[in-house]
Amino acid sequence: MSETRIPVALGDRSHDIVIANGALDHAGRHLAPFARDGRIVVVSDVNVMEALGARLLAGLAEHQLHGEPVVIPPGEPAKSWQGLAGLTNALAELKVERGDTILAFGGGVVGDLAGLAASVFKRGIGVVQMPTSLLAMVDSAIGGKTGINIPQGKNLIGSFHQPPLILIDPSCLNTLPIRQLRAGYAEVVKYGLIGDAAFFAWCEGNGEKLLARDKDTLTHAIETSARAKAAFVAADERETLGKRALLNLGHSFAHALEAETGFSDKLLHGEAVAIGLALAFRFSVARGRCPVEDAERVEAHLRATGLPVRPGDIILDVKGSAIAAHMAADKKASGGDLTLILSRGIGDAFVEGGVKIGEVADFLDRLDRG
Amino acid sequence: MSETRIPVALGDRSHDIVIANGALDHAGRHLAPFARDGRIVVVSDVNVMEALGARLLAGLAEHQLHGEPVVIPPGEPAKSWQGLAGLTNALAELKVERGDTILAFGGGVVGDLAGLAASVFKRGIGVVQMPTSLLAMVDSAIGGKTGINIPQGKNLIGSFHQPPLILIDPSCLNTLPIRQLRAGYAEVVKYGLIGDAAFFAWCEGNGEKLLARDKDTLTHAIETSARAKAAFVAADERETLGKRALLNLGHSFAHALEAETGFSDKLLHGEAVAIGLALAFRFSVARGRCPVEDAERVEAHLRATGLPVRPGDIILDVKGSAIAAHMAADKKASGGDLTLILSRGIGDAFVEGGVKIGEVADFLDRLDRG
Repeated sequence: MSETRIPVALGDRSHDIVIANGALDHAGRHLAPFARDGRIVVVSDVNVMEALGARLLAGLAEHQLHGEPVVIPPGEPAKSWQGLAGLTNALAELKVERGDTILAFGGGVVGDLAGLAASVFKRGIGVVQMPTSLLAMVDSAIGGKTGINIPQGKNLIGSFHQPPLILIDPSCLNTLPIRQLRAGYAEVVKYGLIGDAAFFAWCEGNGEKLLARDKDTLTHAIETSARAKAAFVAADERETLGKRALLNLGHSFAHALEAETGFSDKLLHGEAVAIGLALAFRFSVARGRCPVEDAERVEAHLRATGLPVRPGDIILDVKGSAIAAHMAADKKASGGDLTLILSRGIGDAFVEGGVKIGEVADFLDRLDRG
Repeated sequence: MSETRIPVALGDRSHDIVIANGALDHAGRHLAPFARDGRIVVVSDVNVMEALGARLLAGLAEHQLHGEPVVIPPGEPAKSWQGLAGLTNALAELKVERGDTILAFGGGVVGDLAGLAASVFKRGIGVVQMPTSLLAMVDSAIGGKTGINIPQGKNLIGSFHQPPLILIDPSCLNTLPIRQLRAGYAEVVKYGLIGDAAFFAWCEGNGEKLLARDKDTLTHAIETSARAKAAFVAADERETLGKRALLNLGHSFAHALEAETGFSDKLLHGEAVAIGLALAFRFSVARGRCPVEDAERVEAHLRATGLPVRPGDIILDVKGSAIAAHMAADKKASGGDLTLILSRGIGDAFVEGGVKIGEVADFLDRLDRG
């Protein structure tokens, strides 16, 4: 069983991303250091437990470890105050103690919620991230960001809480619904668009094979993405230097669309990101920053893999001003104006401050109409 | 206006405790660096705002600053999920942004709740602590601990979130209800009991004058206590080395009693600490660690200042096993046994691990009956 280790260099919070096909079935080998008295609490959701839970528990039992599941409801609504209170109550009832480490076993929702729960339970316990969706493997499980949503916006409550280990078994994706796989693929494409034009070209050539779950293609995409994410995080852990911020390419638009659809399964995060990437490129073109050919190439590839590229692909008749208002409420807003990640072309993202909210609203309203 | 600065040495989280009589009326001088566009959001409670709010706002206005109050309900029940959600919603509605700093203006409840809100709002904003109760001035506002209560125990949800400044105006205590002042005094006495026998002797000689709100006596007690707390925090910020843990002298008992009374105003935290201190000394005597004379001296002084020293002074007929069960659920429990802070005598506290829950229950049931 081959294994790739990618270090995330963060001083006394340094840890590894371990990518290993088959890790799930031998999970105890990786997780034994984090158990106490032979037990590790596993936070997961109903769908993941149904698809992969038996294999995980067997993989723990192989090393005489008992996995104690705490199962949360599936989907974005679990990322709420109620979900957080419910999970931390469960940890208290299971007598999880200071110094213990729990396992977050699932997609982005599980990782974000379990991560936040771990960061505030008894003022901070450990959490190993074991992502089971493509989106979580390439993005949300890496970097320590945790969060829940409130009516005013997505992830407006959260923390930075680095895991001691991120354990990725690409074979977990074999049972992931295709819509989820495709949504996660939008984040893979994002790394090419931010700073790696050659990887975007690789995506254009291999996206179809990846979505057909070809093992080596998936593994290569995960490794490349995880390495890129680890480098951004190591350079700017708390997103204060403008480096990590590049990872938000497309995300201000995406979060606003998710807010507009009520963080529901109507629009998955990765689908929102696909639209957001397309919009970020189109807005960059509108501001004279980026050749129109690059925006068209981005949209062509996203469309070819079945991803949406316009709000209208999901939501009918959404107002530009409504989206822009959500963006203004986003936690990345500063001093009233928007700071957006824009692009000079494929593989060349940059931070643009001082963007007027009205300009974004106008852009959205005129999109594909002029 | 004389001013004392006590540094809290915590690397890149280092900050000062500033103690200055009259700081309230010139608050803008100290708080101007933390305002944005001339505004600072002030988290406080109804009682504090009624007693001191006008002076604070005038002290801000003197320096062209607008204080924007967010008023929470008074008392321990505000330290709840609901209280946290309400406060963070208010911050979102007021468009508090990443990089902003809010002011926590109140007692321990305000500081703990505002501190936790600041640590999770937009993944972390700043919070200046301006304590207005004696308990908050000498203890809870210093050290970065934040928290809310859940049914399973006190402060089981929280974080470590250091403020950039702790601003103390002892004159705020002139309007503090005497019951609150007395409760806070228990924490002052604690510093003498932990590691400063001379200060405990000073307390014996000056406690009455302090409770009569003599300005110089209060200021000396606050300075001595704040200096002691700062040293413990600097030596062991996250309570992992067993040094900061000494500050919990009496607190395991206290938290259990508060849990038993439902965290209500029936028993204030400082009152619970007074009982806890007496119990910690009595338990130390029972284990042969401490001369009985020291336990008696502690109780005599606490009683002389009107503080309770037995569960029976507040709650009728409480079972030792019930208290011990709460202690077992406390976040400081480890591996099933209790770790308690005990004493070899006045000014000589130490950490005792491996204490059996049953032993504590028996001790409590036999107390004053043998």
